[in-house]
Amino acid sequence: MSAPLRIALAGLGTVGAGTVALLRNNAKPIARRAGRDLEIVAVSARDKNRKREIALDGIPWYDDAVAMATRPDIEVVVELIGGSEGVARRTVEAAIEQGKHVVTANKALLAHHGNDLARRADVRGVFLGFEAAVAGGIPILKVLREGLAGNQVRRIYGILNGTCNYVLTQMANQRRDFADVLADAQRLGYAEADPSFDIDGIDTAHKLALLAAAAFGTHVDLEGIFVEGIRHVSARDIEYAAALGYSIKLLGVARPTAHGLEQRVHPCMVPQATPIAHVDGVFNAVVVEGDAVGRLMLEGRGAGAAPTASAVVADLIDIASGRGAPGFGMPASTMHESKTAPMARHYGAYYVRLMVSDQPGVIADVAAALRDEAVSMEQMLQRGRAPAGEAVPVVITTHETEEAAMLRAVRKIGALDTVLEPPCLIRIENL
Amino acid sequence: MSAPLRIALAGLGTVGAGTVALLRNNAKPIARRAGRDLEIVAVSARDKNRKREIALDGIPWYDDAVAMATRPDIEVVVELIGGSEGVARRTVEAAIEQGKHVVTANKALLAHHGNDLARRADVRGVFLGFEAAVAGGIPILKVLREGLAGNQVRRIYGILNGTCNYVLTQMANQRRDFADVLADAQRLGYAEADPSFDIDGIDTAHKLALLAAAAFGTHVDLEGIFVEGIRHVSARDIEYAAALGYSIKLLGVARPTAHGLEQRVHPCMVPQATPIAHVDGVFNAVVVEGDAVGRLMLEGRGAGAAPTASAVVADLIDIASGRGAPGFGMPASTMHESKTAPMARHYGAYYVRLMVSDQPGVIADVAAALRDEAVSMEQMLQRGRAPAGEAVPVVITTHETEEAAMLRAVRKIGALDTVLEPPCLIRIENL
Repeated sequence: MSAPLRIALAGLGTVGAGTVALLRNNAKPIARRAGRDLEIVAVSARDKNRKREIALDGIPWYDDAVAMATRPDIEVVVELIGGSEGVARRTVEAAIEQGKHVVTANKALLAHHGNDLARRADVRGVFLGFEAAVAGGIPILKVLREGLAGNQVRRIYGILNGTCNYVLTQMANQRRDFADVLADAQRLGYAEADPSFDIDGIDTAHKLALLAAAAFGTHVDLEGIFVEGIRHVSARDIEYAAALGYSIKLLGVARPTAHGLEQRVHPCMVPQATPIAHVDGVFNAVVVEGDAVGRLMLEGRGAGAAPTASAVVADLIDIASGRGAPGFGMPASTMHESKTAPMARHYGAYYVRLMVSDQPGVIADVAAALRDEAVSMEQMLQRGRAPAGEAVPVVITTHETEEAAMLRAVRKIGALDTVLEPPCLIRIENL
Repeated sequence: MSAPLRIALAGLGTVGAGTVALLRNNAKPIARRAGRDLEIVAVSARDKNRKREIALDGIPWYDDAVAMATRPDIEVVVELIGGSEGVARRTVEAAIEQGKHVVTANKALLAHHGNDLARRADVRGVFLGFEAAVAGGIPILKVLREGLAGNQVRRIYGILNGTCNYVLTQMANQRRDFADVLADAQRLGYAEADPSFDIDGIDTAHKLALLAAAAFGTHVDLEGIFVEGIRHVSARDIEYAAALGYSIKLLGVARPTAHGLEQRVHPCMVPQATPIAHVDGVFNAVVVEGDAVGRLMLEGRGAGAAPTASAVVADLIDIASGRGAPGFGMPASTMHESKTAPMARHYGAYYVRLMVSDQPGVIADVAAALRDEAVSMEQMLQRGRAPAGEAVPVVITTHETEEAAMLRAVRKIGALDTVLEPPCLIRIENL
């Protein structure tokens, strides 16, 4: 057996501690698969005196992660600090510069600087692994770049944020509204005190940017992603969705189109007959549509100490056994710039909920607005009646149409006197 | 870029032709990920004159696959002939002996001779890839041996045979009986003229043997698998299952127990709230329960030319890029013999359907038989009444108990005068 792989670990939060624990608890089976031991020979974190679940006795401690990363005997630096700038970025850059492999769970860093870091890693001939940055324990990057390497990907989409999926699932199961469920989730620790990063789709966008690059061999393009969160989804919309045969999920979707690479994060109505509609609670899922494999779905835990550590350790074992592939599945120099497909050119079906005053002629006006933009209605639902002056919901679904036309029609509809609230629009994804 | 990888292809049936087509259609993206071209430089099949969809002009033809496999310039032999003996086995053995890598979709060959072939491959320092042998396009072997390499697997189970899943799904959706649906499936080409290999669970057992070896690092042990097919499942049982909150699926399940490695293939009642209950039609799915990752499910196409070719080409790309891992994820010499857990020691819950004559005292006799074996009833359902002399169904589910006790109780119950048909027993899997 070869000498142990010498690992420096920067960041000892939940995932860092989970990684130390996993390397210890499963040391023997890991060595069997890696062909050598994996040894943590240096650690660094912000606060040495913080109480931790794991014993770190005998492992040299560094207050300065960057200094640790450049220690000559280190072979791999595991970066679990987080954040797209600051010490995390400097640590990763220093490690690569010094010819060390890097494993990280840092999606923000990769989403912002992935192109540059992949290029640097190639130049220095080191492995940059970030399986843990996307969908936690689900080994989707390995599946994309190796398991499906013979395929051309037609579309990739996923539920990539456990907080949003938990909130939407609770809203559906308990018929409760967004703010209410979010407050609960915050109490239970499923949502942050400041939930914006999750709820507004930013975290999903970071992960989608990495998935799209690995799937299509294009540059990481965070700026090119259309992002819309779940704040405007109501329990009422979830109920109508179910009546129409759909579930509402926050999806990240990427696909090549005639107008360029389309990347978007937004609430989607997905048919209940499709597997991703049944991915509930904090679970994540990614679906790849490949030209050869067809539809492949992976579902598992997208966050948490142990699942994320599972992904970190998988990258480490690849490195230890000399089988590390480029993080995006190909040399950075062969990844190309992609044209961004403007969201206005998105072609899809739509759900619109209107709150209208219950009087004759309303539907005729709405239908006329859609007709004027050549948007074809598929279904219309008006349930119940309301006393004069009170709003009654009307729900419309459309056939596939261009987003720009749809938005123009909705703007006109929203301006009608009989439409009492801003229309709620949710995209339908045909799966 | 390095020189092309020189491939010899033995077997030009559906999957063979699909592999040629995929290597051609996606040549450029494949080369981008592999770092070199993949070139078929020799082919062999039984009948040169058979009409084929693909043009093979200019590729040297061999009537003798074994002779082809030993041609000095060949680097990889792809074996898509099938069958556990004969020319398929001789071709693979000859290729390894000559120091060539082997990629195969042949589950029967691996299930019977996997230990020996893996050992030979290690000795000669070549890669033996068989991703295509298990669950078609689903890259489950790569996920097990690399993506989850940091985990200890607690249980692995899957829907591994599309024919069985198609038949069970149709039975459930159309409330039709087994023989009826099977005849349809045969007409549609979803089932073979002789369906025994699929329907009686043998194909699932072959795949389970390979999954278990990769998951637990144990020798391939086909003999150690308990196998029961789906012939005795009736539309009535599927209906009762649904009423009790279950779907019926043919699962292969493997897990380490106190009595040794348990490997079993049989129809299972799975809770409708678990994702595998929703895997329908010809789709396959594999669920891995790892100590770190938790529950991970992969769902995709388990058969067909293109999905299987996707797996073959993934193995070829691993070889081309020098990243081939041992097929079972570790050197064959480190895989160990496992003790087989006898099925009599299986511990689980059960569903039993009885056809009884509708008279007082029947249930008391049945309950007494269960009590005598310390089997605890969970639910009892008796719906409808029947005229004297006619059979009425009674359905019982039990709490977890040992299989031996359950079988003794069922034998006693079957012997009661008031029980008019042999009891139908289906295991419940707690997921």
